[in-house]
Amino acid sequence: MSEIKALTFDVFGTVVDWRSGVAREAEAVLGPKGHALDWGAFADGWRARYVPAMAKVARGERPFAVLDVLHRENLVELLAEQEIGGLSEAEIDQLNLAWHRLDPWPDVLEGMARLKSRFVLASLSNGNVALMVDMARRAGLPWDVILGAEVARAYKPSPEAYDSAARMLALQPAECLMVAAHPTDLAAAATRGFRTAYVHRPLERGPGREAKRPAAGTFDYAVDDLVALAVALGA
Amino acid sequence: MSEIKALTFDVFGTVVDWRSGVAREAEAVLGPKGHALDWGAFADGWRARYVPAMAKVARGERPFAVLDVLHRENLVELLAEQEIGGLSEAEIDQLNLAWHRLDPWPDVLEGMARLKSRFVLASLSNGNVALMVDMARRAGLPWDVILGAEVARAYKPSPEAYDSAARMLALQPAECLMVAAHPTDLAAAATRGFRTAYVHRPLERGPGREAKRPAAGTFDYAVDDLVALAVALGA
Repeated sequence: MSEIKALTFDVFGTVVDWRSGVAREAEAVLGPKGHALDWGAFADGWRARYVPAMAKVARGERPFAVLDVLHRENLVELLAEQEIGGLSEAEIDQLNLAWHRLDPWPDVLEGMARLKSRFVLASLSNGNVALMVDMARRAGLPWDVILGAEVARAYKPSPEAYDSAARMLALQPAECLMVAAHPTDLAAAATRGFRTAYVHRPLERGPGREAKRPAAGTFDYAVDDLVALAVALGA
Repeated sequence: MSEIKALTFDVFGTVVDWRSGVAREAEAVLGPKGHALDWGAFADGWRARYVPAMAKVARGERPFAVLDVLHRENLVELLAEQEIGGLSEAEIDQLNLAWHRLDPWPDVLEGMARLKSRFVLASLSNGNVALMVDMARRAGLPWDVILGAEVARAYKPSPEAYDSAARMLALQPAECLMVAAHPTDLAAAATRGFRTAYVHRPLERGPGREAKRPAAGTFDYAVDDLVALAVALGA
């Protein structure tokens, strides 16, 4: 097997806790306006519109649009569905930036620091560049390079999202290790020749909704956090 | 005037000393093979082929190709012209990576650290992503994001190189400050609405070949190094 040279990371759920962060930001914007919601469920409702919105791009039903744009459209729909009114356009913009202000899981900064000493660390997220930059600066994520949907002009799990990452890193796909909490992302990366590391994130969808672990041997590595991944990779 | 939020940097000459670095790497590869050259002049000869090669892409005479590809073609031409033979393909590849192993000017690490505390730092170079990643990891350059030719699929000074950077940063052009040692780059950025900072690099082309400073007021800022830029911007 060729040597692993770069780690390409899924971000939402794998590196950062989107559900808690979006819930917190929604409460901060909507709470003072007198809305009392299940904020975690609000985050779930917003997130549930994510895959269908990207799929329309992937199927060619609309031109490529960055995730900030899709997120905002989805937010407007969600607010209408839940009959939450009284927000100005600027307040909707502000709430839409919730995805730029997510916290990393507790192991991430230590794990990434160790991994960075030995490997190129690339974000390979469906989030757009500005979102990834804001998130990284706020949270201290030490990316070497931000790749992913906007740079590729293709959303995961489209082949081009992975292919363009390896090409821009000037690496063979087998020199890239896709790191994700989601088997669909890893399986798509594997079809493009990437190696794969599954990270178990039991709290991604909230308490009591732990995802089932993939069967042993499904992916090249399976770990509980990024420090464990560093140990597994000798970093 | 709108507030500056991101600094977009030219890299070769502005951030790193390409001439000394390429001369050193050429000597390391060609010296042991018995070639005794003026290594600085070799670097100049290689660099002289850079603008014409990019211009062919800009004029549509060839499809977009990353700078590593253009550099290698130019190197093969230069070796032939100078009748330097006896290199394997792998040795030519190795020498071509000289551009990945350039040192920053002495003020750069301190200046960038100060600037990063307040501004997004983006590379906006004609170098490709892998080149910028290798250079940054070796030299410790703390980019928030690598933009530029490969991501834009357009070489500076094409408008799209600048426009795509502002778009991906989700900023207005006037919120971006182009930082460069080259008036042509700054002038092109200004036509796209960027603000401009000229950095004087008297040794870029070697001793005794100092560029003339632009007339006062030509650009928004004019400084002697990146620490001075940080001071000028209050960072």
